[in-house]
Amino acid sequence: MTTATLSVSRRTRRTPLSFFNEEQSVTAYTVYNHMLLPTVFRSVEEDYWHLKEHVQIWDVGCERQVEIAGPDAARLVQSMTPRDLRRAAIGQCLYAPLVDEHGGMVNDPVAIKLDHQRYWLSIADSDVLLWAKGLAYGVGLDVTLREPDVWPLAVQGPKSEDLLARVLGEGVRAIRFFRTDWLRFRDHSLLVARSGWSKQGGFEIYLDDGAVAAELVGALWEAGQPLNVRAGCPNLIERIEGGLLSYGNDMTLLNNPFECGLDRYCDLDGDLEFMGRDALAAIKARGVSRKIVGLKIAADSLPACVEPWPVSREGRPIGEVTSAAVSPQLGCGVALAMLGHGHWQDKHAVVVETPAGPRQASVCPVPFLKAEN
Amino acid sequence: MTTATLSVSRRTRRTPLSFFNEEQSVTAYTVYNHMLLPTVFRSVEEDYWHLKEHVQIWDVGCERQVEIAGPDAARLVQSMTPRDLRRAAIGQCLYAPLVDEHGGMVNDPVAIKLDHQRYWLSIADSDVLLWAKGLAYGVGLDVTLREPDVWPLAVQGPKSEDLLARVLGEGVRAIRFFRTDWLRFRDHSLLVARSGWSKQGGFEIYLDDGAVAAELVGALWEAGQPLNVRAGCPNLIERIEGGLLSYGNDMTLLNNPFECGLDRYCDLDGDLEFMGRDALAAIKARGVSRKIVGLKIAADSLPACVEPWPVSREGRPIGEVTSAAVSPQLGCGVALAMLGHGHWQDKHAVVVETPAGPRQASVCPVPFLKAEN
Repeated sequence: MTTATLSVSRRTRRTPLSFFNEEQSVTAYTVYNHMLLPTVFRSVEEDYWHLKEHVQIWDVGCERQVEIAGPDAARLVQSMTPRDLRRAAIGQCLYAPLVDEHGGMVNDPVAIKLDHQRYWLSIADSDVLLWAKGLAYGVGLDVTLREPDVWPLAVQGPKSEDLLARVLGEGVRAIRFFRTDWLRFRDHSLLVARSGWSKQGGFEIYLDDGAVAAELVGALWEAGQPLNVRAGCPNLIERIEGGLLSYGNDMTLLNNPFECGLDRYCDLDGDLEFMGRDALAAIKARGVSRKIVGLKIAADSLPACVEPWPVSREGRPIGEVTSAAVSPQLGCGVALAMLGHGHWQDKHAVVVETPAGPRQASVCPVPFLKAEN
Repeated sequence: MTTATLSVSRRTRRTPLSFFNEEQSVTAYTVYNHMLLPTVFRSVEEDYWHLKEHVQIWDVGCERQVEIAGPDAARLVQSMTPRDLRRAAIGQCLYAPLVDEHGGMVNDPVAIKLDHQRYWLSIADSDVLLWAKGLAYGVGLDVTLREPDVWPLAVQGPKSEDLLARVLGEGVRAIRFFRTDWLRFRDHSLLVARSGWSKQGGFEIYLDDGAVAAELVGALWEAGQPLNVRAGCPNLIERIEGGLLSYGNDMTLLNNPFECGLDRYCDLDGDLEFMGRDALAAIKARGVSRKIVGLKIAADSLPACVEPWPVSREGRPIGEVTSAAVSPQLGCGVALAMLGHGHWQDKHAVVVETPAGPRQASVCPVPFLKAEN
C-alpha cells in the first residue's frame, strides 16, 4: 500500500472544476480517462454519511463524452453494444455495455441519444474514442468522432433535487430517471440528466463551457448552504453497497456481460445486429463459468483492495475479490467478487485472503442496500 | 496545484515491481496506461543528478505491450504508422508514431519485430489495443491482438551496461542501440533491448514473468551496490533536456507528426501504404502552422506545469508551453512549447505566462543537452 502523492501534468488533465476540489481540500485523486477524479475529501466514511444524508457537488469531468455524429451514427453505436437502442427516444440515457467480437467488455458507458444522427457515450475508463474510430475507419462508416469539450458535473444525494430546483428552477423535478432536459442557467442552456454514479438520487449536468462551470458551482454552493452542501465524489463504500460496477476494477476486457450480471442489457432474442452477437449467443448457450457476486466479509476494518484478493472454499481457489470496503451501515465488509460456478448461492461460505489475513465471508445478493431514492 | 495522494485500486494496476518502489520509498506516482508509474523517489533534482552519474532501476511496467500476431500482423502494424517498417530486422526496435486517417497522433510506441508474424508495440499512454482491435475487426484482418503479461524493467544511467554485464553476462555489451537479444538469467531467458526513456544510456528488459521480476531486481540491487544503484524513474528534467516528447503532454490526437518534429519518421516519398498517408502528404505540402520548439526560460524556479502555459510575443498569443522544469545543469528553465509559424527561429524572444507570473524566454534547439552516452 502506498501513500505516494500524485504527480500531475497536462497528460493527467485538469477539469474546469479542479480549482473547486482544491478549494474544498480534496485529499486524494485518481486518474480516470487521463483526467483527474477526486476520490476523498474528508474521509471515505465521512464523505459516505454526508452523501447519504445531504447533497454533494461532484467533479466528474473525467466521464468523457465520445461524440458519434453523422449518417451512420446510429449504426456504429448499435454495432458496439448488445443493448437494443433502436427505439431510444431523443434525450434518453441508456446504460449500454460495449463489447468486442468475442463479447469482451470494452467499456460500460451511458449512451445519450441527442438527435437521430448524434450520440454521446459517457464513458468509463478506457479509450472508447480510439475503439470507435478504428471500427468506423475499418468498416468505412460515414461518421464524425470526437471528444467534445464537455465536463459532467454531478449533484448527488437526497437533497439534490431541492438544490437544483433553487438554481435551475422547478423544471428539474419533472426530469424522469435517465432522461434529460435543457434547463436555463442565467444566459446558458444546460443539458441536465437525472442520473449519476450513486444510489442516493441526483443529476448530471453536461457542462460544455469551462467558464460556466465556475459560475454554476458558485451558484450551487451559495444556494446549497442551507442544505449542508459539500464537495464530494463517487464514494467507494456507497457504490459497493449499491452494486455499481467499476470498469477496470470489477470487470475488464477479459470479462463478458453475463459474467458481470448484465444479462438484461443483452438483447439476443430478436434480430438485433451488433459485432459481439455470435460470441454472446454462444456464451449464453453454454452458460458462464464465473460471475460477479456480493460478499459480506466478517471484518470491522479492511485494507484497501489495490489488487484482487484470492477467494477460496475448503482450501481450493474459487475466485477473487475485486472491490472491497467496510460498510458502516451494515457493520461488516462488503465486496464484489468474481467467483466460479457452484459458488453463487446466497449465504455460501467462503474465505477471503486479505493482505491483513484470511477473513470469513458469505455470498449475498447485490445491491447490498436498496436505493433510498 | 495539488499535493493530494493517489487512490490506488485494481484499475490503477500495480506491477510486479511496485513492491520494490515502495521498499525504496517512492514519493510520487502517476497513472500511465491504467498502471502505476513512479515519478519521484528522493526529489526530481536529486534523482536527476543520480541518473546522470550512476545507474537506476526503473519500473516501467506501464509501457504496456500490444501484441499483434498472425498472417496480417505486418500489414496491420504498417497501416498504423508512416514509418517504413518493411525492411525491419527481427529483433529490431523502431520508434513508430501511430496516426489516424487525419494524420493525428494516436500514440508513439517503440515497435519491436519479434518474428515475421509477431510484433509488440511498446506504447505510450493511450489504449492502442482498442485502436488496433477496432481497425483489425473493421477491415477484417487475420490477426490476434492482446496485451500480454509483460512488464518492462529499465536500467538507465552511464553505469547501466556495467551493471547488466554483472548480472546477465558480457553479451549485453554487444547489443546495439535499438536492437534486442535474448540473455540468460538463471533459469530464464530474457528479451533485452538497448533502449529506454532517457539520454543517459541503458537497457529495457521485457519481463514476461512476475516471479522473475523480484528475483531479477534483487540480483540487480545486490550487484549494483558498488555502482551506487538506486531505484529511479523517467525524470522530468532529464527528459526535457534530452528532448524526449511525452504523448499526452507535448502532443495529442489533435497534433500531427510534423508539428511534433517527427518528419524523419514519415516516409512519404516511396509507395508506402498506411492509413494517414493522404492526410500527411497534404499537411507536408502546405506546411504546418505550429511546431514544437525548445524554450529557455529566465527562471531559477518554476511551478509544476499541470496545464499548458500561454506563450506570447509583443502581447499576442503565439502558442503554449506543454512541459517545463528547471535545469540544474543549464541554470535556467527548459520547456517544450508548441508555437505558431514565424516563431521557430533560434533565440527568438517570447514571454511565458507561468502561474508564478510572466517570464522571459527564448527559442532554442532541442535537445537542450547532447546525449552523454
